[in-house]
Amino acid sequence: MGFSKLNAIVGQSGGPTSAINATLRGVIEGASKKFNKLYGMRNGISGLLENRITDLTYLYNEDELLYSLSLTPASALGSCRFKLPSDLSSPVYREIFDILYKNDIGVFFYIGGNDSMDTVDKLSKYAKLNSLDVIIIGVPKTIDNDLILTDHCPGYGSCAKYVATTVYEVARDIASYKLPSVTFVEVMGRESGWIGCASALSKCYFGVGADLVYLPEAGFSSGRVLGDLENMLKQKNDILVSISEGVSFDTAVGEEDAFGHKALSGIGKTLELLVKREIGCKVRSIELNLPQRCAAHLVSKTDIEESVLIGKRAVMLACAENSGKMAAFVRAQGEYSVSVDMVDASLVANAIKCVPRDYINKEGNFITDKCVEYISPLIKGEMDIKYEMGLPRHFEMPDGNGGMACIK
Amino acid sequence: MGFSKLNAIVGQSGGPTSAINATLRGVIEGASKKFNKLYGMRNGISGLLENRITDLTYLYNEDELLYSLSLTPASALGSCRFKLPSDLSSPVYREIFDILYKNDIGVFFYIGGNDSMDTVDKLSKYAKLNSLDVIIIGVPKTIDNDLILTDHCPGYGSCAKYVATTVYEVARDIASYKLPSVTFVEVMGRESGWIGCASALSKCYFGVGADLVYLPEAGFSSGRVLGDLENMLKQKNDILVSISEGVSFDTAVGEEDAFGHKALSGIGKTLELLVKREIGCKVRSIELNLPQRCAAHLVSKTDIEESVLIGKRAVMLACAENSGKMAAFVRAQGEYSVSVDMVDASLVANAIKCVPRDYINKEGNFITDKCVEYISPLIKGEMDIKYEMGLPRHFEMPDGNGGMACIK
Repeated sequence: MGFSKLNAIVGQSGGPTSAINATLRGVIEGASKKFNKLYGMRNGISGLLENRITDLTYLYNEDELLYSLSLTPASALGSCRFKLPSDLSSPVYREIFDILYKNDIGVFFYIGGNDSMDTVDKLSKYAKLNSLDVIIIGVPKTIDNDLILTDHCPGYGSCAKYVATTVYEVARDIASYKLPSVTFVEVMGRESGWIGCASALSKCYFGVGADLVYLPEAGFSSGRVLGDLENMLKQKNDILVSISEGVSFDTAVGEEDAFGHKALSGIGKTLELLVKREIGCKVRSIELNLPQRCAAHLVSKTDIEESVLIGKRAVMLACAENSGKMAAFVRAQGEYSVSVDMVDASLVANAIKCVPRDYINKEGNFITDKCVEYISPLIKGEMDIKYEMGLPRHFEMPDGNGGMACIK
Repeated sequence: MGFSKLNAIVGQSGGPTSAINATLRGVIEGASKKFNKLYGMRNGISGLLENRITDLTYLYNEDELLYSLSLTPASALGSCRFKLPSDLSSPVYREIFDILYKNDIGVFFYIGGNDSMDTVDKLSKYAKLNSLDVIIIGVPKTIDNDLILTDHCPGYGSCAKYVATTVYEVARDIASYKLPSVTFVEVMGRESGWIGCASALSKCYFGVGADLVYLPEAGFSSGRVLGDLENMLKQKNDILVSISEGVSFDTAVGEEDAFGHKALSGIGKTLELLVKREIGCKVRSIELNLPQRCAAHLVSKTDIEESVLIGKRAVMLACAENSGKMAAFVRAQGEYSVSVDMVDASLVANAIKCVPRDYINKEGNFITDKCVEYISPLIKGEMDIKYEMGLPRHFEMPDGNGGMACIK
């Protein structure tokens, strides 16, 4: 046994997306041409440390299963949140490489966000430091779209399509009654407002949707939102407001503490209470919650195809003996297309790409045309979802969800 | 002018659904063969009283527009909540029939739930009492599926498909981490648990989904849910619980008042706090909210086709000189099919059909096979949704949403 470049392993880490399994499919398809064996770690690094490894080689050339896998939400291999210690002399590194050695694995793929790129970076540094001949490659995913050095992130396009569609449908719904009303839609995005940007699309395309969009990147105060709403209620009845979960409270909203809500609920509920008290019209808040990252019945074809592509290309990067790198999208000038390049995982690790100021209007309450141009291609196209008994058909790992299939 | 049987009017009332416009399409298609003119009241009876009437005759035989209409969420004509007075000598009745008379309208269709059937009943009684030759016909719709004397309600199948799919996807998501966790999904249904029943389907079909389902019809206490959860956490990690919004609090949950939450949030959030306090594991609550009734991108083909059918049949009932009736589904024995019959609107008005006891298990925390058999055919089939720029294409009334187009 040893670190054989003939065998590889893949893991998924961090928050699930609707496209993370499409990237897994890409890695499997790429691996089928290059590796004798492809293993999967259950629940990322933390499962690997428990020797919970499953053999994915049976999926080579199983096109129908792979198609189904690519449209199954959440991490088929299971996920984890596990930060490796900064001290590379920690015994956990030795443990990880021992397991790889014992299983004759010399290539390691990790699909995840910036925390996962931190893992890729540390493992590749440890290998180099100890002259261990193991290739470590990161493959990006995150609905938050906040990784630097890649044009966008696999998983974002599908989240954006789901959010844009849902906001559009909710706008139709609230227009049914002829009454002044305010509806807050709270979308994910603690530090960056990319998902919030997507909530503006139906309004930009068809004139129906979110009237106001507040992102963490733009200044925000309760006085501001009340002013915007009072102005807008003079013009139309049913106001739809998109608010990113990471928009920060100012002191005026902090007063809401009296409701006991600040710690318990999100910004949407807090603003609902504020508008009820200060404006007094009909008001509602909707938190889009987990479906944003798992509504695989409504994925973007562009996103799914690109997510498969980047998984395949990650295999090519590994076979060219790169390590400590993350596969990244480069957008062509002119008509939309992407190519895959590589960047240092160390640069991506723990960094955040925010929505640029020129993607947000001057007033800080909507997006600009430049932002629309950036997102539009990412949500395009629909996949042919297979249904069974009226529900989408999902892929199941044969060893069960979170089950064990130790190979050693 | 007068009450001409050559001209008809249609309105939509009550909460929107993803299929209420499919029924409107059915009425238009039926009307195109029978009436010279079909008008639409904007915002139901309340718009009619303001003479806000739009001419729908231009849609006769516009198959592409009608297809698009049938897949557009919420009430294309706008909706209202307007209860007619019990006293038939109220001047509002005279006003309504005057407007019909002035516009030469002798046939009146009202698409709605049990409150709307109350409107149908009262208008037909007033007409009969005053020898006014106007036909009044109700057409059912409600995601709640709680109208009596019809096998099921147009709109329910699409809501059930959306809820079942979303719960299935969320179950995949929460299984990604290997940690004990409880996730509450709060679904609509104040008085009946039909939507809650649908949340159990993926678990019944594929073994992945809601582990516990609490309906308003079954007894419920906080001690009960804590006991169920503690038992279940011994067997599996990620527990998914569906809870209908109408499940009533007992005193133990009432204590949550200390959090200031009872009046502000739903049962899901209340139970989240309870589990956090009493069990202490990771816990989350998701309120599915408005998308349950407007997620038209994921409708049931069976529901949409039946919703069109019942609209067409309502026209036939009117042409056979019935009045004060509601069109209703009758399910055939054996292989699933429905026919349309008629029932007295007076019987449907203000009544509620609850989930029968034998659709709920003995323990009161899940549904039975009998319930699955009842719902299964209703969620089957998918429509070909047309997309534009990556978003579903919706139908727009040419006079704008909630706009005015008085014909007199």
